[in-house]
Amino acid sequence: MTSREIRLASRPEGEPEPSNFELAETDVRAPQRGELVVRNRYMSVDPYMRGRMKDVKSYTPPWQIGQQLDGAAIGEVIASKVDGFAEGDLVVHGLGWREVAVVKAQYAQKVTPPAGVPESAFIGVLGMPGLTAYVGLLDIAELRDGDIVFVSGAAGAVGSLAGQIAKLKGHTVIGSAGSPEKVEWLNELGFDAAFDYHDGEVRTLLREAAPDGIDVYFDNVGGDHFAAAIHAMKQNGRAALCGAISSYNTDEPAPFQLMQAIGKRLKLQGFIISDHGDRRQAFIDEVGPWVADGRVQFRETIVDGGVEAAPQAFIDLLRGANTGKMLVRF
Amino acid sequence: MTSREIRLASRPEGEPEPSNFELAETDVRAPQRGELVVRNRYMSVDPYMRGRMKDVKSYTPPWQIGQQLDGAAIGEVIASKVDGFAEGDLVVHGLGWREVAVVKAQYAQKVTPPAGVPESAFIGVLGMPGLTAYVGLLDIAELRDGDIVFVSGAAGAVGSLAGQIAKLKGHTVIGSAGSPEKVEWLNELGFDAAFDYHDGEVRTLLREAAPDGIDVYFDNVGGDHFAAAIHAMKQNGRAALCGAISSYNTDEPAPFQLMQAIGKRLKLQGFIISDHGDRRQAFIDEVGPWVADGRVQFRETIVDGGVEAAPQAFIDLLRGANTGKMLVRF
Repeated sequence: MTSREIRLASRPEGEPEPSNFELAETDVRAPQRGELVVRNRYMSVDPYMRGRMKDVKSYTPPWQIGQQLDGAAIGEVIASKVDGFAEGDLVVHGLGWREVAVVKAQYAQKVTPPAGVPESAFIGVLGMPGLTAYVGLLDIAELRDGDIVFVSGAAGAVGSLAGQIAKLKGHTVIGSAGSPEKVEWLNELGFDAAFDYHDGEVRTLLREAAPDGIDVYFDNVGGDHFAAAIHAMKQNGRAALCGAISSYNTDEPAPFQLMQAIGKRLKLQGFIISDHGDRRQAFIDEVGPWVADGRVQFRETIVDGGVEAAPQAFIDLLRGANTGKMLVRF
Repeated sequence: MTSREIRLASRPEGEPEPSNFELAETDVRAPQRGELVVRNRYMSVDPYMRGRMKDVKSYTPPWQIGQQLDGAAIGEVIASKVDGFAEGDLVVHGLGWREVAVVKAQYAQKVTPPAGVPESAFIGVLGMPGLTAYVGLLDIAELRDGDIVFVSGAAGAVGSLAGQIAKLKGHTVIGSAGSPEKVEWLNELGFDAAFDYHDGEVRTLLREAAPDGIDVYFDNVGGDHFAAAIHAMKQNGRAALCGAISSYNTDEPAPFQLMQAIGKRLKLQGFIISDHGDRRQAFIDEVGPWVADGRVQFRETIVDGGVEAAPQAFIDLLRGANTGKMLVRF
């Protein structure tokens, strides 16, 4: 059996281009004891992957030139050398960017979608992006009664869930997004205010949307959004630093008014979701029912065309082409 | 009785100048029940006072043009309308920048210097600057066993104590300061490394002084120091944002690499010492004996000349003329 996969051809300067990727075909090796062969159905493209294209030490190792890429995927077991896994089982695992993966069972999680929840949700709203929203809001930003919450990149996979969780917990929520259509969706989701950050200076737009200031900032964007949020923060405000998509292609630092952070006793904290696996069960228990009964809505931007469509999907993601989770369907 | 005092004549643009201050003479009113009349012996000039010259809402209200200034002072009670306070008592209070103050007793703290500790220490190493060092290091930066600690502005009133507390608790401590003499003093205090930030790029100097990186950053300086510290921080690093003297005259934001804060799971937290009065007793109990027996050393830069010398002392403080606490003696 053969599988096609995407490899890193070269490291991008600035925005990634199709030439940074190459499509290759490879033989699928036979599974050993403890391994599964999985035919992928969906793979995830995520903003954090831009960091993996750089040759710098980070929380995940960089992708290597000439090597296949990896990332979250969901697929069907087509061969199993593991007790408890059978052909036809659906599993979430970390070997995306390829059609067929040989996966060690300890890195695979069997899932059974409840009625009304598509299997793709397990690499989206009920997967890593969902857990990121949950942990960032509750544990890192320490959401408290009465907090006014601002989420940047609020139409993305993480942001749209962060905003909805805050709304379901009774908070005033403001979101920013990058198009009128995305802002319209945030309004449909019940955000108290939402703005398109192309419509002016973020600081001005945020002041209009949150005239009383904000207590919590869930940062997916960085840059001017970060600076504006620091300015809008009230005393004892907290920021969960989750992503900084505005800087992924540039390395430009955000301007930081330290005196505001001091005078307002702000707490800013970065986090990486892989540290917080112990919160997965609490997340599924609390948010799973909301997804199943429709109180949490989610969108997926699904790109068809299989593995060869994945590089362009990733490039488009960094340009903001997605609403909600961006996926590639095989 | 009359008293001379300093008033705000105008708000500075950039560095304060003598013309921003004016000396005035006023009658001292008779104390009412619950009040003390205090003849000041020492007053404090502190970096945070630069913020009070700006007409912006902050954690302390701005000084008003034409009005007398205030700040920490220690003096002798010369008249008392309060049980428990007698003529000759030494009190720490908040009405500096004047020769004679009428102080409400609830804002005055009676102190009795132990042998070998000068009375001025109570507005320095054992006063607000000392408590700031203690709380910033232990509570805000959450100092843990094995942490490597970097203190910027380490020859100042706060920084020199923060570094010494960390040393006495067994940590590796690196300090920066603004002159060879100050660096020499840090070496005498037992800092593991110290550098003069005029000797090159802070980022390079810090890498040389802390080749294994840092876990805790106690920030008194901001700007390039802040950026360098973020770069040098190890995983799960913590920064106590205490001051940003490099920006007090400019409002220039610090460059902040958000991706580093995310990837390294950094926590940055601003604080204001007036929130932490509940820690004063623990601070005095732990640090007081170290000051009395000489394990904690402190320096004072004392300006003679009385209240009319205070504006220039403050201007010189912002230019780094002090080693340790800067005081004006009456």
